Amino acid sequence: MTALKNDRLLRALLRQDVDRTPIWIMRQAGRYLPEYREIRAQAGSFMGLATDPDLACEVTLQPLRRFELDAAILFSDILTIPDAMGLGLYFVQGEGPKFEHPVRDAAAITRLGVPDPTEELGYVMDAVRTIRAELAGAVPLIGFSGSPWTLATYMVEGGSSRQFSRVKALLYDQPGAAHTLLDTLARSVTAYLNAQIEAGAQAVQIFDSWGGALAHDAFGEFSLRYMAQVVDGLHREWDGRRVPVVLFSKGCNTQLEALADTGADALGVDWTITLAEARARVGDRVALQGNLDPAVLLAGPEAIRDQAERVLASFGPGSGHVFNLGHGITPGVDPDHLGVLVEHVHATSPAFHG
Amino acid sequence: MTALKNDRLLRALLRQDVDRTPIWIMRQAGRYLPEYREIRAQAGSFMGLATDPDLACEVTLQPLRRFELDAAILFSDILTIPDAMGLGLYFVQGEGPKFEHPVRDAAAITRLGVPDPTEELGYVMDAVRTIRAELAGAVPLIGFSGSPWTLATYMVEGGSSRQFSRVKALLYDQPGAAHTLLDTLARSVTAYLNAQIEAGAQAVQIFDSWGGALAHDAFGEFSLRYMAQVVDGLHREWDGRRVPVVLFSKGCNTQLEALADTGADALGVDWTITLAEARARVGDRVALQGNLDPAVLLAGPEAIRDQAERVLASFGPGSGHVFNLGHGITPGVDPDHLGVLVEHVHATSPAFHG
Repeated sequence: MTALKNDRLLRALLRQDVDRTPIWIMRQAGRYLPEYREIRAQAGSFMGLATDPDLACEVTLQPLRRFELDAAILFSDILTIPDAMGLGLYFVQGEGPKFEHPVRDAAAITRLGVPDPTEELGYVMDAVRTIRAELAGAVPLIGFSGSPWTLATYMVEGGSSRQFSRVKALLYDQPGAAHTLLDTLARSVTAYLNAQIEAGAQAVQIFDSWGGALAHDAFGEFSLRYMAQVVDGLHREWDGRRVPVVLFSKGCNTQLEALADTGADALGVDWTITLAEARARVGDRVALQGNLDPAVLLAGPEAIRDQAERVLASFGPGSGHVFNLGHGITPGVDPDHLGVLVEHVHATSPAFHG
Repeated sequence: MTALKNDRLLRALLRQDVDRTPIWIMRQAGRYLPEYREIRAQAGSFMGLATDPDLACEVTLQPLRRFELDAAILFSDILTIPDAMGLGLYFVQGEGPKFEHPVRDAAAITRLGVPDPTEELGYVMDAVRTIRAELAGAVPLIGFSGSPWTLATYMVEGGSSRQFSRVKALLYDQPGAAHTLLDTLARSVTAYLNAQIEAGAQAVQIFDSWGGALAHDAFGEFSLRYMAQVVDGLHREWDGRRVPVVLFSKGCNTQLEALADTGADALGVDWTITLAEARARVGDRVALQGNLDPAVLLAGPEAIRDQAERVLASFGPGSGHVFNLGHGITPGVDPDHLGVLVEHVHATSPAFHG
């Protein structure tokens, strides 16, 4: 494979020296970009876009043409695994993802198998290979998956949820069935991410978007444990290079120490804790990725620059920081505002790495 | 006034000895009760119910007839203050509260006045007096208000929000206007809660339901600061008795120490942190209220008893714990499940107060 021209992301995730803080943005290929909306309209549906390797490659690269980002992230959906398990993923305008066949009882859980990532999910690996070829070593490509718990919430609820009533009733009433489901998902996520690494992903991130819905002890038992199982099973080196693993459990700032104990290389951090406090708590065990409030990009350039500097200053000097938002970019953001952010992080961060 | 027959709640909020852990439930007068839904249907609208002191009294007392709860909480809405400011509160089925006249610019903010709690909000004080008379000292009555920040989110967004785009753009782009708004709200909340105390509320709680949406430093500047201003201005003693103040900032567990520093008597705690950790962090400065995952009540009696005991054990021995959920009770809960919880807390908690 082509040598990597910009390896700041990989170095920072491994807490190695960098000349400036690398930056990428969760959902950087997304609806805030007019060129994304155009391709999305052409594709006809979200999954039409995600399952076409050339279109997925095109939208993955779009933000890199506009901004000097230090990484690309695979364009895909977090629910590809349950879809490959036969649950029938579809999207309803304004309501988000839905499943035709939610998993509602122990019998349905027992029937679930681990999808073959090179068969049912082969379209994702094709996209990874296509993107890597197109990137030609410009920046690294990040692969990703939902966490076992986060996938389970959609599978049991049948879609998005606010209360997580069904899946939590399952945890509390039938913990054995819940563990069976989560173990199947952990094995599926491991195989899926390893296949992405084999296809060319140079770092991987696990999105535990709904970890914050769980009670403290339930998080340990039903989410953290299965992310640790995934981390244990991943290729940590591939193609002669360490493959960093990032865990992002949103709303779980009381769990940072436990997340660091999984052996992940880096943790995503949302905006409700300062990076200074997060860094003090996890020490030098992991790198930190984050954590600008996504709403800052709705404000003007002056506020964006000021708040970006606060994030950089909060992490402070030294390596181990990847700049990002504390959550995905908001669809209504003016793309030029993201340009202001990327430029300012590039301009001001070298002072912290001198 | 009649002597209070059960003062466990007030004693526990002040970290005084109790024979068993008092319990009340956020939104205990609410949609999960068929008798509530009946009165609500009779009233025609939510505000029709909240503005009629006799109906508000009736629904406040309903849960106390079913369960041996240790407190009543005033039935009202958190948006009565902005409504009294002239914003025109109304409710849309399935979408929650809305305002006819959202506050969108500095000029609109400047025009806002502090409502007279005995005039525009006199219906609330009538309800407090009616409920106190009906309670006849059985248990204490808790008054409440939304926090300045939480009220501001609805006023600027025009209703409920997921991203808080408008109000956050205001904070970041026009902090001066935001501070004017929050100061007006802090003075309004102070006057409103003091009027509730004068009318008979024996403890008050400030619901900072959206504190967790703010970035760490923004929370200190735009939410915490104004709750501290309210706490400073409240009657802390009335009718010969200390009036405990509870702050509940949902999703703000990294802020517990700062919340304790406001001088509040107690903090509400959501379910994403153990009471053991919360107690270790705030020490003996404040009592703690919480923190069972509301979803536990969707599970069966065995799980409810087990999880309730875990909460009691996590707080551990000694005074200063008020049992509650970590958020309002879920509308779909079987009322008998709440009965199981109340009974089990009564039965098992004396062991922690021996």
